[in-house]
Amino acid sequence: MTVRVGIVGASGFVGGELLRILLNHPHVDVRVATSREFKGEYVFRVHPHLRGRTMLKFVEPSIDIISRECDYVFLAVPHGQSVNLVPKLLEVGIKVLDLSADYRLKDPEAYVKWYGWEKPHPYPDILKKAVYGLPEIHRDDIRNAQLVAVPGCMATAGILSLLPLVKYGIIELSRIVIDVKIGSSGAGAHAPRLDLHSYRTYVVRPYEVVEHRHIAEIEQELSYVANRPVQVAFTPHAVDIVRGILATSHSWAIKPISEPELWKIFRAVYGNEPFIRIAKDKSGLHRYPDVKYVIGSNYCDVGFEIDKRTGRIVTFAAIDNLMKGAAGQAVQCFNIMLKIDEKTALDITPLFPV
Amino acid sequence: MTVRVGIVGASGFVGGELLRILLNHPHVDVRVATSREFKGEYVFRVHPHLRGRTMLKFVEPSIDIISRECDYVFLAVPHGQSVNLVPKLLEVGIKVLDLSADYRLKDPEAYVKWYGWEKPHPYPDILKKAVYGLPEIHRDDIRNAQLVAVPGCMATAGILSLLPLVKYGIIELSRIVIDVKIGSSGAGAHAPRLDLHSYRTYVVRPYEVVEHRHIAEIEQELSYVANRPVQVAFTPHAVDIVRGILATSHSWAIKPISEPELWKIFRAVYGNEPFIRIAKDKSGLHRYPDVKYVIGSNYCDVGFEIDKRTGRIVTFAAIDNLMKGAAGQAVQCFNIMLKIDEKTALDITPLFPV
Amino acid sequence: MTVRVGIVGASGFVGGELLRILLNHPHVDVRVATSREFKGEYVFRVHPHLRGRTMLKFVEPSIDIISRECDYVFLAVPHGQSVNLVPKLLEVGIKVLDLSADYRLKDPEAYVKWYGWEKPHPYPDILKKAVYGLPEIHRDDIRNAQLVAVPGCMATAGILSLLPLVKYGIIELSRIVIDVKIGSSGAGAHAPRLDLHSYRTYVVRPYEVVEHRHIAEIEQELSYVANRPVQVAFTPHAVDIVRGILATSHSWAIKPISEPELWKIFRAVYGNEPFIRIAKDKSGLHRYPDVKYVIGSNYCDVGFEIDKRTGRIVTFAAIDNLMKGAAGQAVQCFNIMLKIDEKTALDITPLFPV
Amino acid sequence: MTVRVGIVGASGFVGGELLRILLNHPHVDVRVATSREFKGEYVFRVHPHLRGRTMLKFVEPSIDIISRECDYVFLAVPHGQSVNLVPKLLEVGIKVLDLSADYRLKDPEAYVKWYGWEKPHPYPDILKKAVYGLPEIHRDDIRNAQLVAVPGCMATAGILSLLPLVKYGIIELSRIVIDVKIGSSGAGAHAPRLDLHSYRTYVVRPYEVVEHRHIAEIEQELSYVANRPVQVAFTPHAVDIVRGILATSHSWAIKPISEPELWKIFRAVYGNEPFIRIAKDKSGLHRYPDVKYVIGSNYCDVGFEIDKRTGRIVTFAAIDNLMKGAAGQAVQCFNIMLKIDEKTALDITPLFPV
Repeated sequence: MTVRVGIVGASGFVGGELLRILLNHPHVDVRVATSREFKGEYVFRVHPHLRGRTMLKFVEPSIDIISRECDYVFLAVPHGQSVNLVPKLLEVGIKVLDLSADYRLKDPEAYVKWYGWEKPHPYPDILKKAVYGLPEIHRDDIRNAQLVAVPGCMATAGILSLLPLVKYGIIELSRIVIDVKIGSSGAGAHAPRLDLHSYRTYVVRPYEVVEHRHIAEIEQELSYVANRPVQVAFTPHAVDIVRGILATSHSWAIKPISEPELWKIFRAVYGNEPFIRIAKDKSGLHRYPDVKYVIGSNYCDVGFEIDKRTGRIVTFAAIDNLMKGAAGQAVQCFNIMLKIDEKTALDITPLFPV
Repeated sequence: MTVRVGIVGASGFVGGELLRILLNHPHVDVRVATSREFKGEYVFRVHPHLRGRTMLKFVEPSIDIISRECDYVFLAVPHGQSVNLVPKLLEVGIKVLDLSADYRLKDPEAYVKWYGWEKPHPYPDILKKAVYGLPEIHRDDIRNAQLVAVPGCMATAGILSLLPLVKYGIIELSRIVIDVKIGSSGAGAHAPRLDLHSYRTYVVRPYEVVEHRHIAEIEQELSYVANRPVQVAFTPHAVDIVRGILATSHSWAIKPISEPELWKIFRAVYGNEPFIRIAKDKSGLHRYPDVKYVIGSNYCDVGFEIDKRTGRIVTFAAIDNLMKGAAGQAVQCFNIMLKIDEKTALDITPLFPV
Repeated sequence: MTVRVGIVGASGFVGGELLRILLNHPHVDVRVATSREFKGEYVFRVHPHLRGRTMLKFVEPSIDIISRECDYVFLAVPHGQSVNLVPKLLEVGIKVLDLSADYRLKDPEAYVKWYGWEKPHPYPDILKKAVYGLPEIHRDDIRNAQLVAVPGCMATAGILSLLPLVKYGIIELSRIVIDVKIGSSGAGAHAPRLDLHSYRTYVVRPYEVVEHRHIAEIEQELSYVANRPVQVAFTPHAVDIVRGILATSHSWAIKPISEPELWKIFRAVYGNEPFIRIAKDKSGLHRYPDVKYVIGSNYCDVGFEIDKRTGRIVTFAAIDNLMKGAAGQAVQCFNIMLKIDEKTALDITPLFPV
Repeated sequence: MTVRVGIVGASGFVGGELLRILLNHPHVDVRVATSREFKGEYVFRVHPHLRGRTMLKFVEPSIDIISRECDYVFLAVPHGQSVNLVPKLLEVGIKVLDLSADYRLKDPEAYVKWYGWEKPHPYPDILKKAVYGLPEIHRDDIRNAQLVAVPGCMATAGILSLLPLVKYGIIELSRIVIDVKIGSSGAGAHAPRLDLHSYRTYVVRPYEVVEHRHIAEIEQELSYVANRPVQVAFTPHAVDIVRGILATSHSWAIKPISEPELWKIFRAVYGNEPFIRIAKDKSGLHRYPDVKYVIGSNYCDVGFEIDKRTGRIVTFAAIDNLMKGAAGQAVQCFNIMLKIDEKTALDITPLFPV
């Protein structure tokens, strides 16, 4: 089986990562890679790691070309650009994996509130059919989806750090802190002045400290899992790495819980997940998740500890934001849609040390 | 006025930083810099930044030499080494600024609990007389102290991020999260394998996630300020910088508070502090504290934001761990003891960008 | 076909990289991974990236176990430890890939001169049979080797940056400068104080500026290629990255040469090499080799430019020191010995951006 | 004595560094800081390290304001912008320190060749009167200059690494390699895509490998010193630091020279220089110059080694590009012009470790 694939917005970091994965995918033929800025240029001239691995050239985005050449399309475009593109692609029978935020939130009004749109989402019906592409929650729905809304990078880490606790109802749902540390590659290849190396190096820089947009999807998904409203206090910090997110979640147990019980819950939720590793050791050099240990891979390393003094549970999720936080997760969903081994082209050992 | 000063443990990073400051101090004559490992060697051969700035040589530590040569001594030695040194120094009338943890905790039993000592602190009377060297809380006591216990680096950031909220009683005292990000220089010049560059680069690595020793001093000091028990849930993370600490504190307002009210409280507590800068801007490039903006200086930049959705208050404190977190704070206390301008030799502009 | 493989010295960075590659090798069964320090411990407790990918445990090194369990052995041990191990392994019919320097130099006296051994190499006969494992020069000999001496990391980059120029006799052989920039992972997991993060970050630090040991193998190999003595002026610099080496070689053309002629020479030498990419573009974002573009892969990116004003030719070679500079190159040689596709388990796209 | 000073182009990194120094200068009153982009904004909103240290606001650049308010002006503007500004400032009697390249080269035609100007420099007379602001060569001329052309950052390091060798005529003048490693802050605050953190981190990236503009001033100045034409083969490399330049110069001795003789030459040339430190140790941790040891200071650390095997002399110069490479050097010249202690406001200990 060979599936014809297109990547819209292929010159950015997520586009490059999709290419890194999909050019090695045994069932994929990458037919189209679009870039307005670099149309006509060899892909490897923009993505230097791909030199010698592809002679593909960027083309200008066009529904015509895509509908002629592709069965599946990955949209790696800025927020606000997918919203009108998706209906046209669905109309011609193409399956879509949208890496923007445009189809993640179920409530059309939420786009006014969190994304500053002037009006509610114009395609509420498509919104309803879109599947939030987190396999650990929505695997069955992804399998039959026409449109997968691939989760935000920090949302992925935030949700996965808390999923077992919320699913098993063991924490207070109104007092959850998610403190996130994130690298620079999330900002994309067209970033503002503060993302210049001189400004962005040596930082521990809080930003959007009470109003980050990923809150919306985290609360949507955790509330879905809890079947009750979940509220999260979320603060991201830019740190001096290129790839990687660590979500540190602080919550309070409703009643005292033991470490073996917590182990049992984590194993129940994540034991069969191909990309979740529970990283919690008593011996050895590395006792908790760390972004350094997942770089280049689709793994999400999770861990936890009980703070008996205060009743707090602290949980961690470490991901590579371009992989499990974007391109890797998209391909994981794509594999599920293809009904092939979820790990196809994603069974990549992290690079260590990096 | 010239004060004769000694630095015990002068070959480490804190020792180097004390030398950087004190060699430029107009009222100080650095007479003794001890190092067992490097005795007889020129100081600049270990601290390359001091080349051309001093011809001092390291000597082996000795009470005799110190008591003959010094009026004041800074102890920059590992925890557990000051405890028996301090009484001998006090006995011969030397004033001591101890940068280890050995005289920070008021409760002699706390050393068993937090530092794993086999017995309670052997000098409870000296413990009682020691002053916790955080000028923002204990300035008056520091002025007349014989012994100042200079605070821990993360404790400094943690306390200063919360001091106004606790002092004015506006937050719940049992639900406080302090999420700390810290550079590598805190680990000292004799660090274990995981502090090697290859291991310590590209990390966001949680460690001692529920049991870090600095919790003890943070709770001691905030409880003192609140006049009630304060409990903090504290988790530090190693990040890929050499200097710098950002404490992000998440707490919940007892009742809704407005931004102007919070501004008023921060101004009331910190308005006259020479080394606290309130970093909170609506415009400009830099809206919150960031470690990048305090490097090399004794400043603590603090900031805050109200999370109306969740009732949370998020506060920040950014310091250079070797300055306001160690050597700078020690010299600030020293200046207070000398009854000279607190900023003497510390009026250093941060280095930016670094 | 399945080959049984052992890795001696498997807890270091090169050992970890061998495991990363060989655990994914379709014809390899890793049977033994030795570590004195971590014997009995799960491999993933030391190499956190391998969590979930192997349940192998470290064992103490032993000729007995290796001879019973392995057909091929990779020696990733410090210099001076292979010298006596290799004869014992060869004796029991095991094929050896030695990543130390102990069998790289053909002249037994050279070990006295460059490595400070008290006596000449004790096994001159084995030295003679050992093959210097740089496929770009010795592919045919590697194919039938019992013992491959895998080249030094900086030697690999240095040689490959100059090979076409030396092979085609177009430069002066007594005026060659190789200016090398290298990351920290070359120093290994047991590194001295100056390799601590605080000391090793933010450096551009020259070291062993006229006497580095890799000079010996570079001159040996380039002289072999030139069939005349070649002398190199070699200076390495530590820079603030974990992986990666860039060799910048400055040489002088014997007579003026044009860019197309140089292209022709590079293509002739490297056109069929599976892991050499000629990185030289007129357009696009990336015009020369850069360590950033080869990280995690076995590629060596080479490039060149003619300095018409001065008659200089400047050439570049960028590698990942743990891959083409160590583990990757070893596996490339191993594949050649197995007479399988050289790219087996090594066809890894670089990770970008990192 | 108080001198009224203006800074044109004060919102960039060099502007910020001039402010860091000049706001602490006992004889300076900073009256004007211009920025088109940030006019009306507080300086500390753009330069976060200056929070609490100045309430100055940016103003739009204007000859009127400057001529009314300033005695001296520092021009920290892009190349090509000073050329027409300088004559106007000189006309109204203002002394100018120009940090751009526009008045560095003596030959008006050189601007066509090296800077791509369409016509030769329009003010050859002013060019003749401009003094190249490297005190180690032109101190006497700087003292009485109306216009100082502050040297380029890499030119400063390149020249200072070679000055003793060239001055004493001990090396071949046609076979000199200068291999430079440089941080990101040289690129300024308005840098292109490749200077984004994600692209500029983890690099060892050669650029302008045979045609960099600083070659022109290096050859001009070294030829002036040698009184004969000097030709340099110059290649810069971007490395993953923000501040700092290391120039590694490779040259060949005309006849064998001993280490004591070389020491004597270096001492003769640099022994009385307030900002040159000869860093060459047999013992201790740090044996050669390293950018890490000069950060934040105006020092240039120089060092050397003789490569007896090849007849090469390798010399090093390490500077902070924003200090001795720009703002610090400008203030050093300014102090010379004022006939005050050259170290005024520049007697800053490097920050270590950083």
